[in-house]
Amino acid sequence: MSLLVVGSVAFDSIETPVASREHVIGGSAVHFSYAAALFAPVKLVGVVGEDWPNEFTQLLSERGVDTRGLEVVEGKKTFYWKGKYLPNMNDRETLDVQLNVFGEFDPVLPEDYRQSRLVFLANGSPHLQLKVLDQVADPQLVVADTMDLWIQQEPEALLRLLQRVQGVVLNDSEAKLLTQEENLIRAGHKILELGPDFVIIKKGEHGAMLFSAEAIYVLPAFPTCDVVDPTGAGDSFAGGMMGFLAEAGKADATTIKSAIAYGTLTASFQVEDFSLERMKSLTRADLDQRFESFREMMRFE
Amino acid sequence: MSLLVVGSVAFDSIETPVASREHVIGGSAVHFSYAAALFAPVKLVGVVGEDWPNEFTQLLSERGVDTRGLEVVEGKKTFYWKGKYLPNMNDRETLDVQLNVFGEFDPVLPEDYRQSRLVFLANGSPHLQLKVLDQVADPQLVVADTMDLWIQQEPEALLRLLQRVQGVVLNDSEAKLLTQEENLIRAGHKILELGPDFVIIKKGEHGAMLFSAEAIYVLPAFPTCDVVDPTGAGDSFAGGMMGFLAEAGKADATTIKSAIAYGTLTASFQVEDFSLERMKSLTRADLDQRFESFREMMRFE
Repeated sequence: MSLLVVGSVAFDSIETPVASREHVIGGSAVHFSYAAALFAPVKLVGVVGEDWPNEFTQLLSERGVDTRGLEVVEGKKTFYWKGKYLPNMNDRETLDVQLNVFGEFDPVLPEDYRQSRLVFLANGSPHLQLKVLDQVADPQLVVADTMDLWIQQEPEALLRLLQRVQGVVLNDSEAKLLTQEENLIRAGHKILELGPDFVIIKKGEHGAMLFSAEAIYVLPAFPTCDVVDPTGAGDSFAGGMMGFLAEAGKADATTIKSAIAYGTLTASFQVEDFSLERMKSLTRADLDQRFESFREMMRFE
Repeated sequence: MSLLVVGSVAFDSIETPVASREHVIGGSAVHFSYAAALFAPVKLVGVVGEDWPNEFTQLLSERGVDTRGLEVVEGKKTFYWKGKYLPNMNDRETLDVQLNVFGEFDPVLPEDYRQSRLVFLANGSPHLQLKVLDQVADPQLVVADTMDLWIQQEPEALLRLLQRVQGVVLNDSEAKLLTQEENLIRAGHKILELGPDFVIIKKGEHGAMLFSAEAIYVLPAFPTCDVVDPTGAGDSFAGGMMGFLAEAGKADATTIKSAIAYGTLTASFQVEDFSLERMKSLTRADLDQRFESFREMMRFE
């Protein structure tokens, strides 16, 4: 089933306690689509400046990402983010953000993009997310990500958006911020009341939780000691999850549970190296193999 | 199989953001044995002062806890702890600690206690834990808990202890402190190198991890919004786990996995009310029922 994503396409500069990288390929839509394309074709909506190297676009195309929706703005620069991870590899500081072309992005979707059935609104302003959603003719499943910035700065647009999506993905601190609720279970239920049919709360190294009217589902992260760079973990989680749903062509409770497991495992590979480095050599077979270990690990009598 | 526990027996005064209790029954050995006795007979080793009410001892006896090892010291006072939970219900401040009789405790085990096959050394100084262990003739499975205080103040005794136990249970911050390692997976492996055959790291609302030479096992907490008082959660986790092992009469990998699940669920009931309030009415059938929901929640295709 066709999968559309809108989000940031960026240069990232990343410092971790052991190494750093300058101006590598990044952004929410990049990490999402590069992961999701392991499962199903992905149409990317994004914007870059004239400084964006053609090789980066090619990298996406070669993975099976449709980049016709990637607008290139002449005379302008690409979104830039620079961040630094603390020794726990979970908390990070943003050292620099230059929105550049992403700040004024007014997307116009190619005609065939408008027929997409699955839509992922990766992290970006809710106004941008709504603009894209408005152009999709008959979406079957819309899932949105968000972040603290939008919860604080554009709460009304975000609440409008939440009434128009089936699913929302956010991390634990964002869920607490959005609901003013310290208990994550209560936070999850409160977000359900805002509109979505299901809510996924990501807890980083502690896994993820799924809330729906029928059930709660909790899944730990895949235990790994090879955390080199957590950047893009959340987006590749969403990419693996939505990619799995696109491939399955359905989104019942059982399929969503498996999709979350695949998202978890996709993210566990993503963090093993900087940028897209580990993902370049990742195959669907690698994911299936880790899925089997994970299932075995979780099984008890 | 007979199960022995040594640890604190205490008066607790607890403040949470919504309610508080003064001088309720508490302590690591109390929470442990009251939970474990749902599964198997427990022999308690501890000490109290003359201020300890007879009803508290009766409460334990009626549950099937053998209290002949609970020494009463005339003219002295019982261990007292006062703490306050922050709004997240995870972090807490200690407002007052009076070790009293527990500070000078020099246990002498009743003769039949020395034949115990399963031993749990609940939180207490490693010197005390070693003193008890020295008196057990032929223990089959010894598991120890510890805390930041002993890691900092008695590291040598603790390392000696770790070489004499099969299992150790500690929380995530303690595992990091003991190993000087921020990544919990690496921390778990490093603790294995200190002696134990298995290491259980408790992560509170984020569940627990099991490390052994053969495998890692991760289990989320049972999702609950009814957290009234987290005091005793770790001890009742250990009680449910060791009780299950005592009942099963074996401690292979599969049994330990199930034991951790039962520990997780025991703790999920413990936190639903202050002190032993929720545990008083808890039955083995309640645990089995929650175990089935938990297993269903964790199952994926």
